Formats: sequence, C-alpha cells, structure tokens
Amino acid sequence: MVRKHLPKPSSIPEPTLVRLTIYARSLRDALGDGQTVISSDDLAMRAGVNAAKVRKDLSHMGSFGRRGVGYDAALLLETIVQAMGQTKERSYVIVGAGKLGSALLGYNGFHGKGFMAVGAFDTDPSKIGRSIGGITVMPVDELERFVMAEGVDIGIVTVPAPAAQKITDTLVRGGVKAILNFAPTVVVVPGCILCRHVELSSELEVLAHYLNSQGD
Amino acid sequence: MVRKHLPKPSSIPEPTLVRLTIYARSLRDALGDGQTVISSDDLAMRAGVNAAKVRKDLSHMGSFGRRGVGYDAALLLETIVQAMGQTKERSYVIVGAGKLGSALLGYNGFHGKGFMAVGAFDTDPSKIGRSIGGITVMPVDELERFVMAEGVDIGIVTVPAPAAQKITDTLVRGGVKAILNFAPTVVVVPGCILCRHVELSSELEVLAHYLNSQGD
Repeated sequence: MVRKHLPKPSSIPEPTLVRLTIYARSLRDALGDGQTVISSDDLAMRAGVNAAKVRKDLSHMGSFGRRGVGYDAALLLETIVQAMGQTKERSYVIVGAGKLGSALLGYNGFHGKGFMAVGAFDTDPSKIGRSIGGITVMPVDELERFVMAEGVDIGIVTVPAPAAQKITDTLVRGGVKAILNFAPTVVVVPGCILCRHVELSSELEVLAHYLNSQGD
Repeated sequence: MVRKHLPKPSSIPEPTLVRLTIYARSLRDALGDGQTVISSDDLAMRAGVNAAKVRKDLSHMGSFGRRGVGYDAALLLETIVQAMGQTKERSYVIVGAGKLGSALLGYNGFHGKGFMAVGAFDTDPSKIGRSIGGITVMPVDELERFVMAEGVDIGIVTVPAPAAQKITDTLVRGGVKAILNFAPTVVVVPGCILCRHVELSSELEVLAHYLNSQGD
C-alpha cells in the first residue's frame, strides 16, 4: 500500500470533505475496536455511505488500498487528517452561551482535532463569569477587543437570530478569518471572510424528504 | 413566472437538498424583511453560496425566475417546501437529555417545519421528570414501548458514544423509520431504516480546510 500523492486541499469537492470527516470518525472507531485493516464495504457500513461513494471519495486521497485486502486504517486516517489540513491548531470563540453554545463548548468531538476554544461570550449577566467546559463566559462588550488581542481564527455564532448579524460584524471587525453560524438566520460577511451556515434542521428535513420519497 | 413541474423528490441530489433548506431559511428571512422578489445573486449572498450554484440547484425545482427580474420569494419558498416534502408532519423523540439534546429540544428552527417532538429520554434520574422545551424527560427503559405505541417516525440520538448503538437498536426495535445520530460515533442500522450521522465538528473541519488551502 503506497500513498502516491496528496492532492492540493482545495481540489477536494465540498461534499467529499464533509464525508471525509465521517470516515475519519469511523476509522477512529474501527481502530478503537482493534481493527487495523478495513475494507471499503466495512468503512461504508460504518459511515452510512454506499461503498462506491467511499471508493470515489478516497480516490481524492491518491492511490490507496489493495483489492481484496482493504485499507490500512491508521494510514488512511492519517492521510485524511492531513488532507483536511487539521494539523494546524485553530482557535475559536463561541458567542452565545445558551444551550447550544454550552453543548458545543462541552462537545468532546472538537477536542483532539486541532480546535481550541479560547473564549465564550454572552450578554446575560447571569451567565457571565460562569465556567462552561473549562471556559469562562465573558461579556459580549469585550468580544472585539479579545478576538483582536488573541488573534482568534474562527467565531462560532450561537446567539438568537436577531443578534446574529451584529455579532458577526463584531467578530469580523475583531479580525476572525471564518464564521460558523448556528443561528437560525443567514448572516452576511465580506468576501475575504469564510462563512458557513449550519442549519440544524437540515438533516431532519433531508430525512423527511427521503421518507416521503419512499412513500412512507 | 410559471412553475412548470415538480420533480420527483428522489431525483434531487443530496447536497442540493441540504442547500435547499438554507435557501428556504434565506427566503423566510427576505420575506421577513419585506422583500417579495429576490435575485439569484441576492439569494446567493444571503445563503453564502455562489450564484451559479444557486441557479443550478433551483433548476431542480423546474423552470423558475425571470432574467433581470428575479424570483417571487413566496412562490419559490413554497415550491422548495413542497419539493422537500415537509408538508407531512413527522414525530420524533430525542434520546439523551444532556446539553445537546436540550439544545435541540429548545431549538426553534424545528418548529413550523412539520417536525414535532413527542418525547425525550434519559437514564439520569436527576433529568427524568424534568420538562425541557415543553417535553417531559422519560426513563430510557420506556423508550421502545413509547416509540411503538406512538408510532414515532424519527429517533434523534444525542447520548454519549458508548451508548449510541444500543439506543439506536432500541429505536429500531420500537419501529422508527429513521435515525438522526449526533453521538460522536457511527451507528449501524438495518438497510430498511434511514440513518444520517451528524458530525458537529464537520463544519469546523471544512472551514479549517479552506483556511489552510488559502495559506492562512
């Protein structure tokens, strides 16, 4: 098994990127179960994706696996992690320390992937000063100064919809390079800033769509 | 502006389905701002997607919009909602009433989209009996019986990773048609059950990937 080359990161299609993160999760699970070699069928089953799509996605990683043998799970995981570019540590702040913000601060899926929470912010005096997942909640008035002083990479927005654009603007003024918006409204950013909108209901809606198309 | 036909739901590619939910959100925002006609450029900006992709995605909805005029926002929204198949109400239970489960129970983005929380479950005695978002937390021992008796459509799994497969199996025995798994591990279901895995860190990883590919 030889890894021939790593493609330039930007050459990987976005849906593949999202699935790569799930393959990485599946490979970590497999390795945790003591499985060191994994077939594309097995990886497909673990990831909930069809095997042909797995093979096509992994073709973006260069030449991999051997027919009838499968993939070296640890090597494939390392390659995916490198291709995703998770080797450089990225700092983030979470703005909005409500239930979702608290869930994200406590979510162990971010740890060990090169993401580091450095601050949490809220306007609610009863939340300010509290520690969530080891991070102390600060007043939103200090957000811009903090982001600038600390050189924060990513701002995660979990405030109510009406406040989302204002908070986004503050994060952008502070100098973040990217916004991840969980607020149930879209926000607008300057072209030089990356922004992804997470619609938590998307996955439910996609499931419902498939149920309908099955005639259920 | 004439809607020529609605395609069969299953003919829409999955990445388009996910983006359609974000266009719907953007259209609701636009209508809320009093904007009744929207150009593909404006919709693209609101949704954080490039305009060519918006036009291509909307081509799946049939023939729409007029050059130089734009889309009737309300009609386009209605068409997307119909194409997504959100007209039939779907019931769901949430298993795991921790921070994430509570955030999802309280998340207003699910309401008004045809999804109805009918139950929440946990093993923690201190959580059982508490009301979250108007739903009383029940003991997990009652999950299978409840799902079967109520004919629940969808099970949302927000338990810790080690418990995820067992809970999924219980939901499947109870007769759910679909599983939405937020636990940071993959779960396996019989082929007749729909299952989607939500990796909350996916979006952060994709952002980091793009930051890296920009050389940031």
